[in-house]
Amino acid sequence: MNQPKKTTVATLGEHRIIQIIQNHLTPMLNMPVPFGDDVSAVNLNETLAAVLKTDMLVAKTDVPEEMSLFQAARKAIVMNVSDFASKGVQPIAALVALGLPKGFTQKNIEDIADGLNAGAQEYGAYIIGGDTSEASDLIISISLYGTAQKPTLMLRSGAKPGDILAVTGLFGKSAAGLRFLLGDCSASKNAKTLIDAVLTPKARLYEGLALSGCGGVSASMDSSDGLAWTLHELARLSNVGFELTEVPIAPEVKRFAELNGLEPSELALFGGEEYELVVTVKPEKWEATVAAVEAVGGQLLPIGKATEQKQILLKTKDKLLAIEARGWEHFKSQP
Amino acid sequence: MNQPKKTTVATLGEHRIIQIIQNHLTPMLNMPVPFGDDVSAVNLNETLAAVLKTDMLVAKTDVPEEMSLFQAARKAIVMNVSDFASKGVQPIAALVALGLPKGFTQKNIEDIADGLNAGAQEYGAYIIGGDTSEASDLIISISLYGTAQKPTLMLRSGAKPGDILAVTGLFGKSAAGLRFLLGDCSASKNAKTLIDAVLTPKARLYEGLALSGCGGVSASMDSSDGLAWTLHELARLSNVGFELTEVPIAPEVKRFAELNGLEPSELALFGGEEYELVVTVKPEKWEATVAAVEAVGGQLLPIGKATEQKQILLKTKDKLLAIEARGWEHFKSQP
Repeated sequence: MNQPKKTTVATLGEHRIIQIIQNHLTPMLNMPVPFGDDVSAVNLNETLAAVLKTDMLVAKTDVPEEMSLFQAARKAIVMNVSDFASKGVQPIAALVALGLPKGFTQKNIEDIADGLNAGAQEYGAYIIGGDTSEASDLIISISLYGTAQKPTLMLRSGAKPGDILAVTGLFGKSAAGLRFLLGDCSASKNAKTLIDAVLTPKARLYEGLALSGCGGVSASMDSSDGLAWTLHELARLSNVGFELTEVPIAPEVKRFAELNGLEPSELALFGGEEYELVVTVKPEKWEATVAAVEAVGGQLLPIGKATEQKQILLKTKDKLLAIEARGWEHFKSQP
Repeated sequence: MNQPKKTTVATLGEHRIIQIIQNHLTPMLNMPVPFGDDVSAVNLNETLAAVLKTDMLVAKTDVPEEMSLFQAARKAIVMNVSDFASKGVQPIAALVALGLPKGFTQKNIEDIADGLNAGAQEYGAYIIGGDTSEASDLIISISLYGTAQKPTLMLRSGAKPGDILAVTGLFGKSAAGLRFLLGDCSASKNAKTLIDAVLTPKARLYEGLALSGCGGVSASMDSSDGLAWTLHELARLSNVGFELTEVPIAPEVKRFAELNGLEPSELALFGGEEYELVVTVKPEKWEATVAAVEAVGGQLLPIGKATEQKQILLKTKDKLLAIEARGWEHFKSQP
């Protein structure tokens, strides 16, 4: 008889691991945000919830060689703020658990502290506490805290057929930038834009707060696991499908793809580590929603609509292409 | 000219590292709990605060070989609950950021999830979310959340000369247990008690809630960095000293020390990884405070008093001995 092959985290992948863990936990009743959404939350009273998020940056997998410690620490904050942004929640305070390799110097610590502080201040939050331990990798584990009026929380699960699918920006820059940094592509004059997308990502917090404030959003998620994966998650949790009229590709990414003989939509759909918001908007609220996002200096780009049919399809001139459920996944993906 | 030697985290030590980081952060105004206390907190309104804590368990330094993954995960929760206990705060929810080595199996993940859940449920809390990443070490970073009426928070800083110094249990068992597990000592019939102290530590949550509820405590801290270090911290932040009439040593530790030719007070004062509460109590409230702790099945043992003189002294038959400010410290200490 064949021995079953041992299942390790590398074969399971991050999504399945989280599922396994969840199956072993006693669920809290009446959670204002379900397990597995971008953030967690606890009821404070009838209308108010405390909102919490933790996300860990591990240098080995999340930090390219060219990224400074300041940038890595700032990114650890941005990753968490992006999840708050996707629910429309202002972060108030962050705690930091640091795992530090033994050879780190005082200057290294100062750079990390400065990056954490810069990230927090950029989004109106404060670092109020933390913990340090010795570890083999540099680990920056952030916990973010805020409060929200429960009806304003934008969950992953509310999209309805006919809702407009939209994004807060164009995709592919961080995937292109990462390829450029890994040294197997050239980028000519777009290099700086692409590298900046990797080293200094931005969370769409002000867009998220504006989206939440105008009441037209039916579902929302951040795109840190990649656009394609995000679409599949929104579809699964909302019990809809999506028909895209276009893949929102940044012009710099189109040029980069052309220069290197790559498929631009591959970079835009399956890249990950990109912090745009992907939302669905009730059609009757579309114009007000766009206006609200533009009022804070952002943009909201329509890319398709939610459908009854439970597939993620891209409409081209003459046919409908299925978009696969692939994306960046810890344990499975290789940077 | 001599080159200055490079200062690394190993020479700085955890306490100095935290100080350096704090110096680089923009402080939040009106924090209900100052930076550097056992927990952090944010005002919710005039009287209520959200209480937050993050503490990271790293297998390499915090998990002896004999500790199972279930026990390690449970301990990660206990470490954080102990800090809540020391402030008198009920934990409500926990988030978990996991760093998992690539070879971990599904069974390993399940054991970790079960240990996390057991730890949370033991203290009335729920795991409501988290994140997983690949890491070289097993890392379990917990964030704990609760709320508290601000006047009930027991800070490190309120001890006054004349206050009674007290502890919720006897010390030295985890230091003795760890030495036994490391294989360089024998323990005869006490082995199980000592090993249990290492593998299945308990947080004094119900004692902490009782202490906070009766209003007699002027300062409080958990003893996870060791009794001696805890006394020095309480003294420094309260601007007092302490005169101890005895070192609270567990009888099993006295026997273990005798059997192995060790100094029992060394194990009790400088061991660390022990989760008792060290508190000061206003003398006029002493009896009510003891009664409150005993009502929840705990004990409160007087071991001395706070003094004007800023030293930590142990009164023996014929002299006063100074207790050094040593303890368990990440980066500096070797398990």
